[in-house]
Amino acid sequence: MARDERGVTPQSEDFSSWYNELVTKAQLADRGPAKGTMVIRPYGYRMWELLQAALDQRIKDTGHDNAYFPLLIPESYLKREAEHVEGFSPELAVVTHAGGKELEEPLIVRPTSETVIGEMMAKWISSYRDLPLLLNQWANVVRWELRPRLFLRTTEFLWQEGHTAHADEADAMHETLQMLDVYAEIARDWAAIPVVPGEKTAGERFAGAVRTFTIEGMMRDGKALQSGTSHYMGTNFARAFGIQYLDAGGRQELCHTTSWGLSTRMIGGVIMAHGDDKGLVLPPRLAPYQVVIVPIGRGDAAEAVAAAVRDLAGRFKAAGIRAHVDDRPQVSPGYKFNEWELRGVPIRLEIGPRDLTNGTALLARRLGDAGKTAISLEGAPETVNRELADFQAFLLRRATEFRDSRTAGADSWPEFTAAVEVGWASALHCGQPACEDEIKAETAATARCIPNDGPAERGTCVRCNAPSAYGKRVLFGRSY
Amino acid sequence: MARDERGVTPQSEDFSSWYNELVTKAQLADRGPAKGTMVIRPYGYRMWELLQAALDQRIKDTGHDNAYFPLLIPESYLKREAEHVEGFSPELAVVTHAGGKELEEPLIVRPTSETVIGEMMAKWISSYRDLPLLLNQWANVVRWELRPRLFLRTTEFLWQEGHTAHADEADAMHETLQMLDVYAEIARDWAAIPVVPGEKTAGERFAGAVRTFTIEGMMRDGKALQSGTSHYMGTNFARAFGIQYLDAGGRQELCHTTSWGLSTRMIGGVIMAHGDDKGLVLPPRLAPYQVVIVPIGRGDAAEAVAAAVRDLAGRFKAAGIRAHVDDRPQVSPGYKFNEWELRGVPIRLEIGPRDLTNGTALLARRLGDAGKTAISLEGAPETVNRELADFQAFLLRRATEFRDSRTAGADSWPEFTAAVEVGWASALHCGQPACEDEIKAETAATARCIPNDGPAERGTCVRCNAPSAYGKRVLFGRSY
Repeated sequence: MARDERGVTPQSEDFSSWYNELVTKAQLADRGPAKGTMVIRPYGYRMWELLQAALDQRIKDTGHDNAYFPLLIPESYLKREAEHVEGFSPELAVVTHAGGKELEEPLIVRPTSETVIGEMMAKWISSYRDLPLLLNQWANVVRWELRPRLFLRTTEFLWQEGHTAHADEADAMHETLQMLDVYAEIARDWAAIPVVPGEKTAGERFAGAVRTFTIEGMMRDGKALQSGTSHYMGTNFARAFGIQYLDAGGRQELCHTTSWGLSTRMIGGVIMAHGDDKGLVLPPRLAPYQVVIVPIGRGDAAEAVAAAVRDLAGRFKAAGIRAHVDDRPQVSPGYKFNEWELRGVPIRLEIGPRDLTNGTALLARRLGDAGKTAISLEGAPETVNRELADFQAFLLRRATEFRDSRTAGADSWPEFTAAVEVGWASALHCGQPACEDEIKAETAATARCIPNDGPAERGTCVRCNAPSAYGKRVLFGRSY
Repeated sequence: MARDERGVTPQSEDFSSWYNELVTKAQLADRGPAKGTMVIRPYGYRMWELLQAALDQRIKDTGHDNAYFPLLIPESYLKREAEHVEGFSPELAVVTHAGGKELEEPLIVRPTSETVIGEMMAKWISSYRDLPLLLNQWANVVRWELRPRLFLRTTEFLWQEGHTAHADEADAMHETLQMLDVYAEIARDWAAIPVVPGEKTAGERFAGAVRTFTIEGMMRDGKALQSGTSHYMGTNFARAFGIQYLDAGGRQELCHTTSWGLSTRMIGGVIMAHGDDKGLVLPPRLAPYQVVIVPIGRGDAAEAVAAAVRDLAGRFKAAGIRAHVDDRPQVSPGYKFNEWELRGVPIRLEIGPRDLTNGTALLARRLGDAGKTAISLEGAPETVNRELADFQAFLLRRATEFRDSRTAGADSWPEFTAAVEVGWASALHCGQPACEDEIKAETAATARCIPNDGPAERGTCVRCNAPSAYGKRVLFGRSY
């Protein structure tokens, strides 16, 4: 596509400009008036709704209840868990005045809800019979961003945050890993992103957590996007907020808690994991419009075509396919083709008078060199449903091959630096934070995770030759 | 029910205490730590989710797209529409510090989003082809409350706010009334509340609106609850934010805008419109659990009963019935019966060894004196589905009869004061704000609305004998 006013800087030329231009030109989101805030436009919000519905169902299926906790949290609450407040302090937005008066105690706009939920859990839990307590909330949170980027780092973002309390470490760790699996499944099956689930190293842990797990997705520039995290808090928050229970023997015990979150950042992941020079490429399961129908032809034939298109759209709807008819009279078919290509619609159908005579429509896919195929109008819902499933599977396969082709086992420092130039390095590491810092300073790569399913391996650190830690390899890469 | 630790003050004795105790004891909500904030617990949040799903579907069916706009709004935005800022100023929460620094311009935590959405609409609309622009968002808003009350008046609440832009007044007014109808339909068909849709008098209008419409529900103490509002803004916000379009003739015109909102307040309405001395009475369509199954019996028979109950629960789920099995070993059946009565579950089923032998279960309704009925286990899903539909219809009928029995045509001042003692007065009024103020000072009653479907009538004001306004009667009542 020529880089006209509707096109974007090619991805291959400048990934960052490509992303920024695409997010606004595809009408996914706009900057809000306050620094770092985001307006999610209907096209982007619909993607979030589709992702949200899938994840909410899995959260409910795994026994969690949704609830809602307050946006505004007394400042003193955040201070109760020392590491937590230290981690979040630089990012807080503070309400100092309300109802026309200065508040006695400032209120924090929640950056996350461990503290206020901890306070309530302490009220609700008294006996082992109250455990596990499995809660989730869909909410907005605010973390002040100095270098905001739509979907990836915004001052306010939308997410779900799960918070659970358990009788012991084993049960809490099972929960932590179960929800990481749910995230990996949603990323793979809905966003078509073959994320790698694993544990964060000490330096990358959530503020206040004992163990932090992550799913890491590879973007088309070879960088990693942390796309969801799940934390085992040990008894840190339970101690700070008094979340206790009487066990069956009548002893008072501290609960073990977890939290886990996935946010609108995932929409940024979908853009960067699949998009190309021409624009977005959307996985059908998250596409607001899975198919766009463009009626062709003017004058006498137009009404017959319009009627056929209406009929087809009705049959798509009945078949559960999200179809959109682009019948704008003021722009040409070519303009529409370019626009829907930019906006990533998986399948386009063209129907003109000649197609109508033949009882067919022309089908074009967003990716692949198959060109246009004539399909029968009568069987169109079945054909399109099959094409959508194929497209969803194709995207996951393509992303998996891309990730694997850009991930290299690195057994020497030159191999390591070469690998993180274009993607990820899988390497043994000593586990020392200072060594991680040096790697970051020199290559801009960080430890993304210690993959859960990595095979056992021991040896020496790729950077400093000290004995390796973790008993397996660590995945390193540059990241968002 | 005896007023034990789990009971509540009888509604008939003290409506306000009944409400406050019930909300927390039924585990609908709790107070949050910051003044006036609310924690919505799973049982209350599920009601909101069910209401939300029904309303969201209607909002989409009527052509609106969901989007998301920022929580934090620059202070200067609110000041652009003079009446708007005047109306909201006393209720604002203000962020003055963020990211560790004092902000150059304070940010307001949105009390509503007309201003920020107006700013974005001005960017997105250029031609008549962009109209109407039909947006909705599900969000939290903050309005500082001096006398908070869970669900009814909280510092933070959840709602949807629709915002639309149109080419002319006729189209915008059509939208305003269409969404009022949607609200009335949701209130009636889901919450079983026979609300009265009508227009607000000048004194009760939304800050910045030209016309405000409302749905008013009658609670069981005879008071009115404003349960949703729909506003025609004229060109007030369009002028303040520059929301303009080029018409087909190439002239620049201002848009006409609307906004409409329905909030978690509706949950308070459900509680107060149907509850009784024993606790909540939930309309089946909004009940988290539509039926609770209590297995009876211990020892040898317990396992056979448990197996039958599991089987039944599975068949309920397959039939789309929200069923809950209360198999807690540590509390008695009687305790469970009282608890689920308090929590308003429409139907309870008891199954013991003898029932099992007979292939039956005992069904008890939350209301009505029919006592317990034995129903066939085999046909239980069909029976229960029918009972739930009956119960939903019964609640609406009962609420309608109650409302009508407590609404009196008042043609004299004594009739008026007597009517608003127990419910609503339908009376002619002069339309003068000063006269409304006097009525309020003397009786605590306010003009709730001028019902949309009121028959034409003229005469003299029930209070001051001046000629009546509006061409029909006004509904007066005390309110929340």
